[in-house]
This record gives sequence, C-alpha cells and structure tokens, in this order.
Amino acid sequence: MLEELKQRVYEANMLLPRYGLVTFTWGNASEIDRESGIFAIKPSGVDYEKLRPEDMVLVDLEGKVVEGELNPSSDTATHVELFKSFPDIGGVVHTHSSYATSWAQSGRDIPCYGTTHADYYYGPVPCLRVLTKEELDEGYEKNTGVLIVKEFERQSIDHTAVTACLCKNHGPFCWGKSATDAVHGAVVLEEVAKMAYRTELINSKVEPAPQYLQDKHYFRKHGKDAYYGQK
Amino acid sequence: MLEELKQRVYEANMLLPRYGLVTFTWGNASEIDRESGIFAIKPSGVDYEKLRPEDMVLVDLEGKVVEGELNPSSDTATHVELFKSFPDIGGVVHTHSSYATSWAQSGRDIPCYGTTHADYYYGPVPCLRVLTKEELDEGYEKNTGVLIVKEFERQSIDHTAVTACLCKNHGPFCWGKSATDAVHGAVVLEEVAKMAYRTELINSKVEPAPQYLQDKHYFRKHGKDAYYGQK
Amino acid sequence: MLEELKQRVYEANMLLPRYGLVTFTWGNASEIDRESGIFAIKPSGVDYEKLRPEDMVLVDLEGKVVEGELNPSSDTATHVELFKSFPDIGGVVHTHSSYATSWAQSGRDIPCYGTTHADYYYGPVPCLRVLTKEELDEGYEKNTGVLIVKEFERQSIDHTAVTACLCKNHGPFCWGKSATDAVHGAVVLEEVAKMAYRTELINSKVEPAPQYLQDKHYFRKHGKDAYYGQK
Amino acid sequence: MLEELKQRVYEANMLLPRYGLVTFTWGNASEIDRESGIFAIKPSGVDYEKLRPEDMVLVDLEGKVVEGELNPSSDTATHVELFKSFPDIGGVVHTHSSYATSWAQSGRDIPCYGTTHADYYYGPVPCLRVLTKEELDEGYEKNTGVLIVKEFERQSIDHTAVTACLCKNHGPFCWGKSATDAVHGAVVLEEVAKMAYRTELINSKVEPAPQYLQDKHYFRKHGKDAYYGQK
Repeated sequence: MLEELKQRVYEANMLLPRYGLVTFTWGNASEIDRESGIFAIKPSGVDYEKLRPEDMVLVDLEGKVVEGELNPSSDTATHVELFKSFPDIGGVVHTHSSYATSWAQSGRDIPCYGTTHADYYYGPVPCLRVLTKEELDEGYEKNTGVLIVKEFERQSIDHTAVTACLCKNHGPFCWGKSATDAVHGAVVLEEVAKMAYRTELINSKVEPAPQYLQDKHYFRKHGKDAYYGQK
Repeated sequence: MLEELKQRVYEANMLLPRYGLVTFTWGNASEIDRESGIFAIKPSGVDYEKLRPEDMVLVDLEGKVVEGELNPSSDTATHVELFKSFPDIGGVVHTHSSYATSWAQSGRDIPCYGTTHADYYYGPVPCLRVLTKEELDEGYEKNTGVLIVKEFERQSIDHTAVTACLCKNHGPFCWGKSATDAVHGAVVLEEVAKMAYRTELINSKVEPAPQYLQDKHYFRKHGKDAYYGQK
Repeated sequence: MLEELKQRVYEANMLLPRYGLVTFTWGNASEIDRESGIFAIKPSGVDYEKLRPEDMVLVDLEGKVVEGELNPSSDTATHVELFKSFPDIGGVVHTHSSYATSWAQSGRDIPCYGTTHADYYYGPVPCLRVLTKEELDEGYEKNTGVLIVKEFERQSIDHTAVTACLCKNHGPFCWGKSATDAVHGAVVLEEVAKMAYRTELINSKVEPAPQYLQDKHYFRKHGKDAYYGQK
Repeated sequence: MLEELKQRVYEANMLLPRYGLVTFTWGNASEIDRESGIFAIKPSGVDYEKLRPEDMVLVDLEGKVVEGELNPSSDTATHVELFKSFPDIGGVVHTHSSYATSWAQSGRDIPCYGTTHADYYYGPVPCLRVLTKEELDEGYEKNTGVLIVKEFERQSIDHTAVTACLCKNHGPFCWGKSATDAVHGAVVLEEVAKMAYRTELINSKVEPAPQYLQDKHYFRKHGKDAYYGQK
C-alpha cells in the first residue's frame, strides 16, 4: 500500500547522501499521507547504498508499524509528534549535517546574518534546550518532538516561517510540504549554518541583518506579495 | 532573436554550479548586446538542471522584457543599472558563493593580502552599506544597482580595476567583458575571499600587501605594460 | 595462506583513500586471524593505486614476517602491541586524517559535544602524551603501542567503549572487530573531530553534552538494551 | 628536442589541477635536463584543459627560450635562479594553493606541529620577506629566486631537507628531484599547511613537536638509516 509515497520517501532519503548531508546512516526522511494518517520512513540503520523503495516502513500516528518488516528509524517517535502537532506539514528530515550539528553542539541559535537566511527562515533558527533526565527517561524520541512543538509555542515562533530547529548537543530537524521539500530545507540550513560560522570568524562583533531587509527577502519569496520565481 | 547571446548566457549560467558557486537557484548571469541595448538573463527560480538556452529572457535597459515567457531573475533591475552606468562592461553575475557572502554578511571589505588578489583587483573589494529602508521600499533591486554605482564614484574606485563588490548582508556582484568573464571573476573572488579569511585566522594582526607589490602584480596582467600570458 | 584475510585487509585499505582519510601512503589497516595469531597488513610506502591483495604482508604476534616479499607498514610494531594487549579486537587502522591529526597535533582530547560522538565513543577520545626520548630510542613503533595500552589502563578507559585514540604530535589509531570496522571508526572519528573543532569556534565556552544524554545515545546503540538498527 | 622531458613536465603540470592545487592558470611546474642545462616549463596563462605536451617551452639557464612558440611562465626567471643555485634539484613548482598561500599571506613560517610535517621537512617551512621596492624594480621574478637562495643560506636552512618555502604575500615554491617529485611536495605542503592552521585554532598555545620526535620521523624516511617504504 501507498507505493507512490514509499517511492517518494525513498528518493528523498537518497538525496541526503547525494547532497553530502549524511555519513553512513546518520539521517532519515519521512512523508505523511494525510488522508490515511500514515507516513513512510527510512528503516533504522540501513546503509543508503543498500536501501530500496520497498524497505520504507509505514507507520501510523500512534507510532505503530502498519507495514514493513524492518524496524523504522529510531527517531520515528519524533516524526510522529511533529506530524501530529504541525498538521500543515507533509515531510520531516533529521540529519547530522556537519555545520548545523556544530551549531547544535555549541548550543546557539543561528542568527540571521543575511539574505540567504532571510530568503528561507523568518528569524533565527532556534537551538532548543536538552531534554531533562526525566523527559529523556520517559521517552527520549517522543519527548524530543514534544519539546520542539512546545518551544516553538513558548517562543512564539511560527513553524511555517521557521521550518527547522536545532536540538542541543544533537542536530537539526527540518520539515516542509513533502519529504523532498524538507530535504531541500536541510540543504539550505547547512549552507546558512556554514556561512553564519564564517561570518562570525571574519567579524566577531557582527550584528544580524536589519529587520526590514529580512522582511523584504522573506516576503519576496513567501506570502501573497511574493514575486520570486515563476507563477 | 539574439540566439547566440542567449546560448552564451545559458553557458555562463551553467558554469556557476560547475564551479560550486551556487546552491539550488541562488545565482544569475547576464550579458548585453550593446548594439541593440538588450541583455539576456537567467529566468527567476528555475533549476540549473532544467535550464535550456531558449529559457533565457531578453530585457531592455528600461528593464522591460523584450522576449521570453518566463519571469527574468528577480535581480534584473540591478543588472539594468550596472549595464546603464558602466557602459564598458558586457556581463554581470550575482551569486551567494559561500566565502564572498560570508564577507558580505560580516560587513567588511576584503583587504588585498597577496598577489592572487592583486592579479585581479586593484585594491580592496569593497563591502557596500545596506540600503536604507526608504531606498529599499522605493525599489530594492534597482536601488541596489544605483548604490553600487554611487559608492564606486564616492569612494573613487575604478570599476574596471575592481570588477566586483559585496552588498552588505547579501552577497557579491561581479562584472566583466562578457557573462563568461564575469563568471570567471566570481570564481576568483571566491578564492580570494577564502584565502583572506584563512589569512586573518592564521595572523590576526596581518597587514595588506605593500602597495608596490600590488602595483607590480596588477600591472603585470593589466594595461599596456602587461607581460603575463600570450600575445 | 589466509587468502581471504588478505583480500579483506586489501579492501579495507582501499577504503581509506575512498573516504578521503589518506593522502599518498599515509595510512594502513590490518586484521588478525585469531586462530593462527597472524595478521595481514599493508606493505610500507606502496601507493594505493598500485596496491594488490597479494601485496598484503602476513605478520605474527612477535612482529615477524610470515609471508610476503614486501616490507610491512613501518607502524607494524604498534599493530602487534594492540593485537596482543586487546585480545577482543580484530582490526587496527592508522591514518593522518586531517581533523583528527589536527587535534593530535594540538595535544588535546576530543570532548564529547554531542550525540554523533556519543553514538560511537563513551567519553572523550583521549590524546596520549608523546613518548619520552628514551621510550622512542628503545623502540618507537612498539612503544607507541605499549603507551596506548598503558594509558587506557591508567586512565581507566575501556578500549571496547572508546575504540580510538590520538597520539600527540602524530595522529589517530582506531580499532574494531575487523579491518573494515576499524576503517568505519576512522571515518566516524574524523567527522567527530571536524564537528568538535567547529563547535568550539562557534562557542568558545561550550561544555560537553550532559552525561545522561551521552549514556542514552551510547546505550541506544551498544549493549543488551540497544534498539538502534535491525535485529 | 627533449621530447621525453616535455612529456614529463606536461604530465606534472596536469597533476596540479587534479590535486586541487590550482585555480585557472595559477601554477607552473618545470624540470631540467642537467646534461644540456635546459629546462621545460609550462607556457604562461594557458588553460590546463587546453595544454598539450608540445606546448612546453624549453629555456636555458640564462633564461632564454631555446624552443617553443609560446611565452614561458611569467615565473620562469625564478625557476632559473633555483636551478642555478640548487644544482642537486631537478624540478620546481609554484602554485597559489589555498592553505599554503594563506600562510604566505599571513607572513608566518609553518611550524612543525607533528610527524606529517616531520616526515617531509626538517624544521619549519620558512616564510621569506617581501622583496624591497628596489629588488622588485630591478627584476621581480629573478630576484624572487635570488632571495630564496640567499635566505636559505642566511638562515642556514638545508634546501635538500626543507624543499619548500613561502614568499610573503605571494605563495609557495617547492622543489624536488623531478617535476613530479616537486608536485608531490606541493601536495604535502598544502596538507601540512591545512593541519597547522587547524591545530592553532584548536589550541592557540600549541608548541612545535619535540625535536627528538621530528628527528625520528625525518630520519625514518631520509638518509642512510631510513627504513620507511621498500628497498
């Protein structure tokens, strides 16, 4: 069932090594079929070069495997929470991509230093706190998803305008309209993280880009007055 | 019309991903036919792998589309200003190449630390201020071009000796005799930006190269006494 | 004799340039046949592009060449010591991979800044002191191995939970169940070293990841309660 | 004449882009035939992808073109001085490789931080001063070579044990037994420069490797007691 979904999710996962975002098996992409409430996700710990479309695991929003003989990604419970709480998203991606993960390890938000960032994210990409020991013991992967949702709410960040976050001491999660769109976001995040890193090393006193410039670029690409690209 | 121009501009655009200067659609190259006052430019937001020569859009110096069914690059109005005010240039390139953009985000000129820089640019590559909110509201892309021209004039920089600039919090613009020549310059700028970054991290008190060494290298390659290369 | 072992060790060695871990001949991998107490190792100073399975040299645990016409790796005596003192390992790898070697040159342990590290190493990757002049004169390569074993003991580090170390002013040694597994570890170490380097440049006051998070990730992948991957 | 020499020099030049040491035409390699006192060198400013063996220019030790229709490299006079004053070398290479050039631009010697460096260079790789305006006006390229020779003498550096130097605000020159050997050295220098850069960023108070470790590694590979590699 959902063969096309599995094919799409397979292809999105295969983009991760192609874009240089994963080493070995350090990443996973999923996409949901909103009608049935079932999503397809990469199986856990399977090498990308051996991955096949039929290996994708189908999981429902309770986190139960609906189809597939392999274990789903160990991060499946995080994907579940994001799909449940962000009803307008279709795909989720997690990687350990090098620059984004370095920011996550450093425990800092990625400031918006320029238009490359502003074209995609409206404001800083937040680095969320580590789970407490209690949250972790209760359910590490599930509570990672719960934390993302709660922190976006608490910090009043619109998850459709900032489609990524960093989990402290861990790495990035990205989401989008589809698995492919979320992978696209993971590439952007890595580029933005790389340039922010270099920007601070060139000028240790650098300030974020002026808000009106951030507005201009974000709304040039998003919303009703957007004029970038083709109609 | 102008089929050869469109072919050349197509090929110059395709060099951008080949040289690693663009991610996704983050760049554009154009070239002008001075006789007709019409230039060809990449369409906005079209993937490089799907781009075809016939997709190039023809635009006149009023910024009006003369031929082509796609929207031209969102930066078209900047290209117009550069072609109008720098009558001796033939091509313009804009990218978000990683090191040059990091310098732009840091808000600093790239100092001339050595002969690699001096072989191409006579003096620092300037980082221009951000547009004011008023300038931006009046016409962001047009006023970006206007600012480049005004700042080169105000700072007495010869645009034929420094064929690139950084727009603060944004990225580089490069120009040259043709689209291909401007792409060549964008590659040089990225290398120069990368080495200047590393140079400062190796020696935080480094000074620019002596002026007489800069003169030697620049004039070894440019002007009537040049002796680099073949006749 | 031991043709399959030589083939496996050949293939593991060929992975080193493929993963970008060696320049020229700067690396070597070995694997032991525990039944006979003989291991196969790369010959010294032979280009990877000319290497053939039959060039692998067979060496016993006294360090004597048992088969092969070429000199074994100059680091052979270090491999001998590790195979002798760590009876549960099957493969050893030494490289001069760029980031791990830079940490070794800097004389610092690699702190555990995140889950990428914790997924593989339980605690920091230690940087061991330089041999004294006396130790070096007595037997450089042998005493390098002796030092690794002694320092893991002295610092109470479990060599099955931290399967790598840095030798100060030199570079990394990695070990594992097989030559291929040790190469896999060398790739992980390089990624971890790269991200730790960037993490500190982003936040010079960064602290290691909380111990309970390190525990969670290490034991998600290792030991009886592991649940990462397929059964 | 000297067809084999030209072929070898052609092949050595073609290694420069393959090893990622040159952008566009920013590098040149030469090799001398000591019997005739004639060397072959890359022509000036010719693209590597268009280069052919027959394009190599033959030059004598007066700096006069003996055969070839193209202009020799603009750095030819530097090669002449090195071949004249270092009678035991056979090849010379100049590049603007990124890390080595960044050290040259920073005006600092590359300290010996580890065995990767010590395996090839006995002591720091020196960064030589800029030519004075007088030296430059008198003959830039010739005096660059003269300076290298004089500075090695003045600083009592054995040019057979340190086969490379950095020219301040410019870039590296490397030499060896042949053009290919000098290219090999240029690759080593770039790796060593890259790791020294990272080493200092990891530990700003790092000290050079102990002299006895440097001795060990250098003499493991060089001189009568060398035991690295095959006989």
